[in-house]
Amino acid sequence: MNLRFGVIGTGAIGREHIKRISQTLAGAEVVAVTDVNQEAAKQVVADFKLNANVYPDDKALIAAKEVDAILVSSWGPAHEASVLAGIEAGKYIFCEKPLATTAEGARRIVDAEIKHGKRLVQVGFMRRYDYGYVKLKEAIENGAIGEPLMIHAAHRNPTVPETYSTDMAITDTLIHEIDALHWLVNDDYASVQVIYPKKTKNALPHLRDPQLVIIETKGGISITVEIFVNCRYGYDIQCEVVGEEGIVKLPEFSNIVTRKSGKLSQDILMDWKDRFIDAYDVEIQDFIDSISKTGEPKGPTSWDGYIASVTAAACVKAQESGVTEAIELDERPTFYEEGAKTNEVSA
Amino acid sequence: MNLRFGVIGTGAIGREHIKRISQTLAGAEVVAVTDVNQEAAKQVVADFKLNANVYPDDKALIAAKEVDAILVSSWGPAHEASVLAGIEAGKYIFCEKPLATTAEGARRIVDAEIKHGKRLVQVGFMRRYDYGYVKLKEAIENGAIGEPLMIHAAHRNPTVPETYSTDMAITDTLIHEIDALHWLVNDDYASVQVIYPKKTKNALPHLRDPQLVIIETKGGISITVEIFVNCRYGYDIQCEVVGEEGIVKLPEFSNIVTRKSGKLSQDILMDWKDRFIDAYDVEIQDFIDSISKTGEPKGPTSWDGYIASVTAAACVKAQESGVTEAIELDERPTFYEEGAKTNEVSA
Amino acid sequence: MNLRFGVIGTGAIGREHIKRISQTLAGAEVVAVTDVNQEAAKQVVADFKLNANVYPDDKALIAAKEVDAILVSSWGPAHEASVLAGIEAGKYIFCEKPLATTAEGARRIVDAEIKHGKRLVQVGFMRRYDYGYVKLKEAIENGAIGEPLMIHAAHRNPTVPETYSTDMAITDTLIHEIDALHWLVNDDYASVQVIYPKKTKNALPHLRDPQLVIIETKGGISITVEIFVNCRYGYDIQCEVVGEEGIVKLPEFSNIVTRKSGKLSQDILMDWKDRFIDAYDVEIQDFIDSISKTGEPKGPTSWDGYIASVTAAACVKAQESGVTEAIELDERPTFYEEGAKTNEVSA
Amino acid sequence: MNLRFGVIGTGAIGREHIKRISQTLAGAEVVAVTDVNQEAAKQVVADFKLNANVYPDDKALIAAKEVDAILVSSWGPAHEASVLAGIEAGKYIFCEKPLATTAEGARRIVDAEIKHGKRLVQVGFMRRYDYGYVKLKEAIENGAIGEPLMIHAAHRNPTVPETYSTDMAITDTLIHEIDALHWLVNDDYASVQVIYPKKTKNALPHLRDPQLVIIETKGGISITVEIFVNCRYGYDIQCEVVGEEGIVKLPEFSNIVTRKSGKLSQDILMDWKDRFIDAYDVEIQDFIDSISKTGEPKGPTSWDGYIASVTAAACVKAQESGVTEAIELDERPTFYEEGAKTNEVSA
Repeated sequence: MNLRFGVIGTGAIGREHIKRISQTLAGAEVVAVTDVNQEAAKQVVADFKLNANVYPDDKALIAAKEVDAILVSSWGPAHEASVLAGIEAGKYIFCEKPLATTAEGARRIVDAEIKHGKRLVQVGFMRRYDYGYVKLKEAIENGAIGEPLMIHAAHRNPTVPETYSTDMAITDTLIHEIDALHWLVNDDYASVQVIYPKKTKNALPHLRDPQLVIIETKGGISITVEIFVNCRYGYDIQCEVVGEEGIVKLPEFSNIVTRKSGKLSQDILMDWKDRFIDAYDVEIQDFIDSISKTGEPKGPTSWDGYIASVTAAACVKAQESGVTEAIELDERPTFYEEGAKTNEVSA
Repeated sequence: MNLRFGVIGTGAIGREHIKRISQTLAGAEVVAVTDVNQEAAKQVVADFKLNANVYPDDKALIAAKEVDAILVSSWGPAHEASVLAGIEAGKYIFCEKPLATTAEGARRIVDAEIKHGKRLVQVGFMRRYDYGYVKLKEAIENGAIGEPLMIHAAHRNPTVPETYSTDMAITDTLIHEIDALHWLVNDDYASVQVIYPKKTKNALPHLRDPQLVIIETKGGISITVEIFVNCRYGYDIQCEVVGEEGIVKLPEFSNIVTRKSGKLSQDILMDWKDRFIDAYDVEIQDFIDSISKTGEPKGPTSWDGYIASVTAAACVKAQESGVTEAIELDERPTFYEEGAKTNEVSA
Repeated sequence: MNLRFGVIGTGAIGREHIKRISQTLAGAEVVAVTDVNQEAAKQVVADFKLNANVYPDDKALIAAKEVDAILVSSWGPAHEASVLAGIEAGKYIFCEKPLATTAEGARRIVDAEIKHGKRLVQVGFMRRYDYGYVKLKEAIENGAIGEPLMIHAAHRNPTVPETYSTDMAITDTLIHEIDALHWLVNDDYASVQVIYPKKTKNALPHLRDPQLVIIETKGGISITVEIFVNCRYGYDIQCEVVGEEGIVKLPEFSNIVTRKSGKLSQDILMDWKDRFIDAYDVEIQDFIDSISKTGEPKGPTSWDGYIASVTAAACVKAQESGVTEAIELDERPTFYEEGAKTNEVSA
Repeated sequence: MNLRFGVIGTGAIGREHIKRISQTLAGAEVVAVTDVNQEAAKQVVADFKLNANVYPDDKALIAAKEVDAILVSSWGPAHEASVLAGIEAGKYIFCEKPLATTAEGARRIVDAEIKHGKRLVQVGFMRRYDYGYVKLKEAIENGAIGEPLMIHAAHRNPTVPETYSTDMAITDTLIHEIDALHWLVNDDYASVQVIYPKKTKNALPHLRDPQLVIIETKGGISITVEIFVNCRYGYDIQCEVVGEEGIVKLPEFSNIVTRKSGKLSQDILMDWKDRFIDAYDVEIQDFIDSISKTGEPKGPTSWDGYIASVTAAACVKAQESGVTEAIELDERPTFYEEGAKTNEVSA
């Protein structure tokens, strides 16, 4: 029987997920939508020929009997309330990042979920479902490189819109590395420092770009992440884990190889959506299949959302202070220990 | 509304497709199955919890009202009869290769489909849906390398079962290159020659392995394909198209890069199913979506199946004769000209 | 004590070697030069500030007491006479390819050298001194890929002068593969076939380009070599040896990797002189050092020159006949068995 | 006429240079040697069959009339005195790193050379002569990547001897990056910070390994260098320069590519001497040729040696303090402005 989704927020990313669920994935359908712009919500029903009700707001949609699971893809500041309402109603929740815009908000969700007594929430950190990251994690866990000691990562976008501000380099961009890297090495973050290299002339006046973020984990791993959102040449995600016995690195995005005009070359992606398109599919399919098989999602948890919120806040603080800032996490609740372990993607 | 499949043949590849349709793809379901081994057919219904009828034979399944489309994944020699019956019944047909085991049989299907007046049949040549091949074709059609002059290809398997015979290097292995390469360069084959290099000690006594197939197209393109099915090291598909202004080549399968013990390395796939797993998904999804949108499949046609049959027969003849053999195709019916053009996969 | 060279032929390649000996290598000097154009010979002495005599012809230069070794870089048809005169005089000889323009001529040199009783001659096949080829041979001899079964090679130039004719694809271009490939796999050639793919529009009317040469060795190895001398995009030498247990391949020429404008790229060389510049240095230094240490050169022998001449003649015959032609070599004289074995370059 | 070298210090690296000058390079010879171990000095003369005098100490060797140039390859702490004596005597000097073990010592050499009025000294920073670094610099200077903003580098050794201490990660290892990186981007260093990631179990108790060095230039470029001298897997030098419009990176060391046992791989070097062997040759040949052509060496100057000394001292201070330390250089004397510009290696 299909998992019946209610989608909260039918903007760009909401539409993508609606298309994915109704046209690409198996075992699910979209039966309800809502958006602050009701016309947009109606339009999406028409565009994708959905057999779905349009609700006036998230509360009504969450309350609807036909809705098994909600997909939260609204404006970030609205996430927390929808997720809390969803937990209250005992519905499954797939929430796009951020889970909440503050650490306190994320903690409230964690507490609500623990009180509910069963995992309901999965946060939309799709990199854990990317073939390359999955293989990196496998290699590390198989001991291929011994104990991890350092990670060198880069997150580069060709360009960003004018509304993109310096702190968004953390909250919108680095946020993906924040989730993926602690998961990769199964460690917690301890502190962070942000360095501003010489600014590119291609960034607008209000934006510091590039940035260099240096994070230390509790286990002592040193992580450097270059964030460069006006790099011009392409959308490029790099991640290299240096261990005691060897190094593993994400592959370049696979593309045909051309010999022409004195160059041996392959295309670099320009659009981030192309880079993780498979991961988005696998992520939601895993949400659907896990609930179908085990009654719980097994992807990134509310606790992972909490870690991301706390870490992002410390990173933004470090952007402003210029010094090393502590990343202070509450103790991990036992509730999430199992959850952390059961996230195994077979690729 | 879902496309309702009846599956003829529930062996290994039939089960794969049933799993794919019911658990991975959108817009379709399996409503009927049959197999010469009725127990196997019943088992697959149970295993995948299908809501599907088990029919005693292909004729009964094809006649069933609930069946919109048949998927033929039975024993090769049985394909022709099922496909002809399917056309007779006006059902959509996805037929695994070979379309027919003889050129005459493939021609009979072509004629039946033309008589029917609308495209019903798609042949399971999945490489046309592989990202790498799609990008190669795009590059060639965009003029990136000018006119194609040569293709260098290789099809390597780590090992084959004892039942694999010398002619199967053509009918089971090369058959994929036979379909993909004429499609890539939009040309027809003219002649073929087979050379037997020194035999590997890793092949069984009855098998000539490796083999070198040299094909010339009507347009004058020279194609060399190495077939090496006991290459030991991995499943490896290579394809390089040399044009007047440059060269394009399939990428290596993308895998994480490891530095360890004095080696910079990445894993090569050992299993062919992993190499084209995405292509299989895209292929069937395209069959479903095209029928839904246009009322016709747009993938590889009966005519492509006919080309493959004629070419394979000439290759086998060349294996035996040791000399260059002509590949004599009937004139392409106008019916298939449009079909050939409409196969556009966006990747 | 320095090895004192007399250089016969001060055209482009002669000048390169003179510069190499006098400005790059150790243990040698140029003490004599001659050229049919005496002014050119004098000019080279002035240009490189050589302390060298200019002789009226090769005979006078060969006879000169101060000359220990002659370097033959004159017009191809003149090589045989100079080499025979050099052997007669007991001088060491480094002869650019071809050793002789006919198989009979090469055989005469072989016989003269055998009669002389000691190795004097080295032929300028520099690929044996290229790091990549040396490593390929090492890997094959160490059993890394088991028995070699096939070789896929390509020899591509961006363009050729108007004087380049169809047979020069063999005698000037393929000649390097002819020498390198039998050396790589330690086997002799048995037969050859030449196929003409569709002609590139970038070749002049009188030239067949590209060409595909298919050679079989006595041991049964199948070799395909693409020759494409108007490939436009670069000077590109490819060589892949397929063995029973694995494959080894020449590396791409090493160049910095650039990410820019949506491309991950590295430059391909455009000029053949850059590709083997190190090999030229190592080749002549090895000639100098071997003579100094053992009294004999240990590089490619007169017999290798003979093999090249016989094979090239058969290839040209195959170009014209369109059928498979035998490559018929005399039995290898015992004199050259040791020589073949002693060619070990440490890289 | 040959440049006549006197070599001070006939240990491992001294012997390498003696061999290079006498057996590989053109235009020079070794006419004098000295070592604190006189037997070792005599042995080297015998081993390489040098026509050279053995002197009791550096002063006697420097004073010898037959000596045009001294090559200082003694124990680091002895360099300064030999170089100062060489300048005093007006001899050319090729000094292995370090030029002096203190910033003050290096400054004394700078002052002595300025007083002498002509460049005499070249410091043995061979990376500037490595093909990859030369191409990186060319690309940067041609504007291929716009203004450089960041450099990510790594210096990895498989293992180090027991005598290797934490500060030697700077003075023996990073010293090469210290010289190469400011040269690459034509900028001066401003400050440095050292981070100690989790220590590898493969390092001895007294050694901090790996280390992460973060340097900022006066122009604002952020440089991260990973130093990891027990990385086990190989000798591996990485350098990536991120600019406003693109990125350039050193190539992997070029080696044959193998497909075997499920791996696509190439060997990584294990020995640092193999990595820069060509650069060592080019470096000394350039010293010889520049003096011959212009009467002055044009490679790394005394001022570069001074920069290296000051920077290394600040890095060691930062290792100990754990905080960011300033790198305070005197103002560059006009004497060295031209020198910096004239270092152009054509590759």
